[in-house]
Parts: sequence; structure tokens; C-alpha cells
Amino acid sequence: MRTTTGWRATSTSEVGRAQVRRRELRADDLAVRVDYCGVCHTDVHALGAYDAGAQAPLVPGHEFTGTVTEVGAGVRGFEVGDRVAVGNIVDSCGTCAMCEAGQENFCRSFPTLTYGGTDRHDGSTTLGAYSREYVVRDAFAYPLPAGLDPAAAAPLLCAGITVWEPLRALGVGGGSRVAVAGLGGLGHLAVKLAVALGARTTVLSRTPDKRDDALRLGADGFLVTDDEKAMAEARDSFDVVLDTISAPHGLAPYLRLVALDGTLSLLGYLGPVTVETTDLLIGRKKLGSAGSGGRPATAELLRFCAEHGVVADVEVLPSAQVNTALERLRRNDVRYRFVLDMSDLG
Amino acid sequence: MRTTTGWRATSTSEVGRAQVRRRELRADDLAVRVDYCGVCHTDVHALGAYDAGAQAPLVPGHEFTGTVTEVGAGVRGFEVGDRVAVGNIVDSCGTCAMCEAGQENFCRSFPTLTYGGTDRHDGSTTLGAYSREYVVRDAFAYPLPAGLDPAAAAPLLCAGITVWEPLRALGVGGGSRVAVAGLGGLGHLAVKLAVALGARTTVLSRTPDKRDDALRLGADGFLVTDDEKAMAEARDSFDVVLDTISAPHGLAPYLRLVALDGTLSLLGYLGPVTVETTDLLIGRKKLGSAGSGGRPATAELLRFCAEHGVVADVEVLPSAQVNTALERLRRNDVRYRFVLDMSDLG
Repeated sequence: MRTTTGWRATSTSEVGRAQVRRRELRADDLAVRVDYCGVCHTDVHALGAYDAGAQAPLVPGHEFTGTVTEVGAGVRGFEVGDRVAVGNIVDSCGTCAMCEAGQENFCRSFPTLTYGGTDRHDGSTTLGAYSREYVVRDAFAYPLPAGLDPAAAAPLLCAGITVWEPLRALGVGGGSRVAVAGLGGLGHLAVKLAVALGARTTVLSRTPDKRDDALRLGADGFLVTDDEKAMAEARDSFDVVLDTISAPHGLAPYLRLVALDGTLSLLGYLGPVTVETTDLLIGRKKLGSAGSGGRPATAELLRFCAEHGVVADVEVLPSAQVNTALERLRRNDVRYRFVLDMSDLG
Repeated sequence: MRTTTGWRATSTSEVGRAQVRRRELRADDLAVRVDYCGVCHTDVHALGAYDAGAQAPLVPGHEFTGTVTEVGAGVRGFEVGDRVAVGNIVDSCGTCAMCEAGQENFCRSFPTLTYGGTDRHDGSTTLGAYSREYVVRDAFAYPLPAGLDPAAAAPLLCAGITVWEPLRALGVGGGSRVAVAGLGGLGHLAVKLAVALGARTTVLSRTPDKRDDALRLGADGFLVTDDEKAMAEARDSFDVVLDTISAPHGLAPYLRLVALDGTLSLLGYLGPVTVETTDLLIGRKKLGSAGSGGRPATAELLRFCAEHGVVADVEVLPSAQVNTALERLRRNDVRYRFVLDMSDLG
């Protein structure tokens, strides 16, 4: 085993500095010096559910960029010094229909998560990238295109790919009418990506105070969902509504905005939802969801972002301020993603 | 006013012979001698909810074929003696975005239903086609193609179009993998139409006893939903699952059958439904619905059915046996649609 330094759960709300063990490199492994790691809502949820007595150690972090420091004997695609990016999946079975379709995120025997997952070879619990080093199978590391800022690119690997896959699967392109509900980590990247794809893009928000931000991100329109008249006028007018709101909420007002044969895609709140079938029937509307991404789509997203200059709007903090970041994220006090700079770990 | 004879609700389960009033013809009206009228689940529901004290008279019936007996002064497309078919919509605003898209069934100011609707000109409550004559606006009557049996074609106008629209909107064609849950009025037509469209079509049923019928209708496969092993093997394997089951039921087993980016379309039960978002997320699946049809799709369906020889499997009864038909339909004792022969009304 090798060791590195990282930030491990010490309670259901905080992490503390600790030594983190990493496996010795297998033939297809890369050792990556973690340079920047995004702070995702999933990290807050994982901490909140953490039970120190019953669980393996928890090190969060599943959207990061870094530099290759060592490669396994069989690695061909990467060299020491390469910039790479890694998301929330680090392995999959590779043989099921979903893996064969390039949707490792839907692997039938469940993909190996970057933290809190179970390694497919040694059965150990994976430890995340709130740490200075990560050891990852080469197939799940992606070359980071030269033009992308490594701090601002880190959130592309979870927040970005989660909104990219539905945008692509739903055929969004020039002329599409897209609405984005919720302007957080996912939502602000959804706006940037939809705009870059050529869609006419509208931000939906309960209050008018995010209007300037929405327009600055490139949105063409802004719709206050508490404004009944504006909502009635916008009925049936969006081919795709991406709902990135993380709290439970009624779907009827959002379904009403969906155009004939359009789709409301749930990306933020992933619990049970209830809809009236007639809200789908009238206008032949669809309710969908998506999350994370497969290898081909992730590689495609990074190429697209490099070509179009799309990265996240980030607030970069030294990793020693991780608890501040977690606490502020709980209050949604972030525009739009915290990224930890790991260089303070040595 | 003109009068005809029909079958009017006398209780929440039965109808009785009665005189039915029809409006004098407007310039764009046809008078149609009703030859055959299908008995739809909606008729059972409408009767069940009937409150004689609080409601206008109720005459069910909204899928029928007949013969034009008189035309209004402005009618150009029809002549006396023409065979026509009429469905569950007899008017719409004609100017909203849905009407302009040829989806009069989703008219923003609600389409005028064939019975129990409100006429857009005189405000009267529409009375259905369990009667010898119906007066209908020409735009909502469709020429019945010569090759189609008028009794077996009647159910195309409600059951048929309700399954046709989602099949078309979801792009079903050669090579598509379609499953149909529930083998009743809607389901048996869904199988015939999917097969005629070139789809590989499988019937889903809780018990094995409908296997022979499914194969006789043209299905390529039959899957018993209580067979856990078969259901596990069929996971993620259908581009489209049409759910025509009319009773409330859990959707998770059906969503599990939907392929990557595929759709489960709810056509039978139209109340509230609850789904786990993760059942949509994993495989990026969609939940949709559809009902009835617009004018272009209805005309297209009739042409397609004439070309491919598709009609409903019907049991034709003299209209005087309507209460028997309603009672048997309540018990699902029908393969697959009752049609009333109205000639006994004179």
C-alpha cells in the first residue's frame, strides 16, 4: 500500500486531515496527483449519512483534475506529467449491455464509485479525491484538453456530465428550446452547455434575483416561476426542461412548460415523484432523468468544452478550508461550485 | 331540433331506450346515420359517475362509423351516402398552438368531446353515438376507406388512435422493439399496429393464458410478468412499452423492461402515478402518456389500416343488448371490443 494525505469524515458534517491509503498500481492503473477537486452535493449527502461505527472510512470527492505521476506496467495511453480528469465512476463490468453501449454509468452490476464504492478486484471501499493522490484505472481517466483551466474544469466531471448526457440524448442543438430550473452547480453548467449547443435557453427561478447571473451565463430568457401570468404564457414552449432543483418539489408547473413531445428531465432531486398522468397525456409529454455519464460521452464533453471554452464558474479554496466549503454549500451559498486546491497538502 | 332514438343512462350502470334530440344542421355539419358504435371503457366510467339529479342526460358512445344522410349548406368534402368514421372529439378552437400543430386532442381550450362535452356554439351538452343519428362538424368526420369493415373499424376511432399516436410519436418502425402490456381493446390494436409498422412486438401478461391470442394477433413474443427469471432476462430490452392496463398498478417492473433512452407510455390508467426517479435515471428512461388523436393522425391511421388490413377484433351485438355489453366489459369479458349494431333502432 501507498499513503497520501487527505480529508476524511470525522462527523456527519465535517472532515479532518488524515492519512489515506492507496493501492499499489496494477498494470492498468495511473497514480494521479490530485490538483483540484470539486465539492458536490453528493459529498454533503454522503457525510450526512456517515456512520463512523458501522462504515468504512469516508473520504469524499469525485470530480477532480490532476497530473499523472506514475503509470502501471500495461498503461499505453498516458505518460507521467499528463493532465487528466476523473469523475464519479472508476470502474465497471465492461461486458454488460450498458457497458457495451458506452454507458458504464448504468452498468448492470453497478459501476464502481470513486468513493464509497467497492473495488472490483480487492473488495476494498474506495476513498475519494479530497486527497493529494488518487490511483485510478486508466480507462476511467480522461486526458484534460490543454485549453481548459484545471480548477474550473474539475466540476465538468460530475455536474457537467450529468447535464450533458440528457442534453445530447434529447437531441438538443440549434433551434432547440431549453429551460433550466435551479441555478446551482448543475444548472449553471446546463445553461452554458445548452447555449454552446445553439439552443435558445431560458432560466427558471422562483425569484427575480438571479436574472443578471442567468443572462451573464448566456441565457436568452429568464422566467420567474412565481409569476403566474408569465408561466401561463410560457406553457407548452420548451422542448427540454432540465430540472436541477435538489429539494423535493411539485412537477406540475414544470410539466406545463414542456412542449408537445418534449421532456422534463429530473437531475437534482432523485427520490420518488408523483405526477398526474393527464399532465403527461395532454401534449404527449415525457418525464425522464439522467445522472453521471459513460466514457464516450465524458470524453466528448471535454472535447466540446475545450472547443467552446466552457468551464464551471468556481470559487477555489485551499483544501484546508474544505469544512467552510461544505458548510456554505449546505446553505447554497456558492456561485456556482467550490473547488478545493489540493496543493496545500504538500 | 331533430330527434332520433338512442340509449340514455338510467342509472350508474345501465342505459335505456330513449328519444335523443339533435341540432338542426349548421352550414358545416353532417347528419350521420350511426351504423356501428364501439363500447369503450370510458363509457363504463362515465356511467359509473353519472348523477341524474345534477347532470344533463348522458348518452355514451364515441367511436362510430356510419353513413352521411344530409349535409349542411357549406359542406364540400362529403356527400349523402358517404361512409364516415367519428371519434371522441367533435370540435376544437382551431386557433391555439396545439390545434395549429394538428393536435386538436390537446386543444388549449379543451376539445369538444363527442358526449358529455359542451358545444362551442349553443352551449348544449353533447350526446353520444349510442343512437341512430349523430350530427357532427365536417372537420371531425373522416372518410371511411372502402376496404375497412364498418363494424370492426369503429374501435379504430378511439382505442386505435390512442395507441397509434404514441407509436408514431415515439418513432416505431422496422426494427423497433415494442412491448404491449394489457391485451384488451387498446392492447390488441397496439399489437396489430406495431406489427404492421414492422416492430418486433411482445405481449406482456401476468398469466400465460393469453399466449395463443397474442401470437394469433401477430406478436413475435410473449412475456409472463409474474415470471421473475423471464422478466430479468428481458430487462432494458424494449424501445417502447405501451401500458394499456386500466387499473392502478406499480410501474417499476415495466420501467425495468425499457431500453436505454426508451419510453414507457401510460395509456390505460390515467390517475396519479408515483415512480422512483432512479428507475428513470438508470438507463435514461422516460415515462409518457397519450390519449385520443388529432385530425391528421386520425386520417393517417385510417389510411394505414386500409393499406395493412388492420381492424379491431370485435363482438358485434344488436344495440338492444348494450347493457349486456357494458356488464361484460366491466368484467373484462370481451375479446377485444364490443361494437353495437344500431340497425335495430330503425
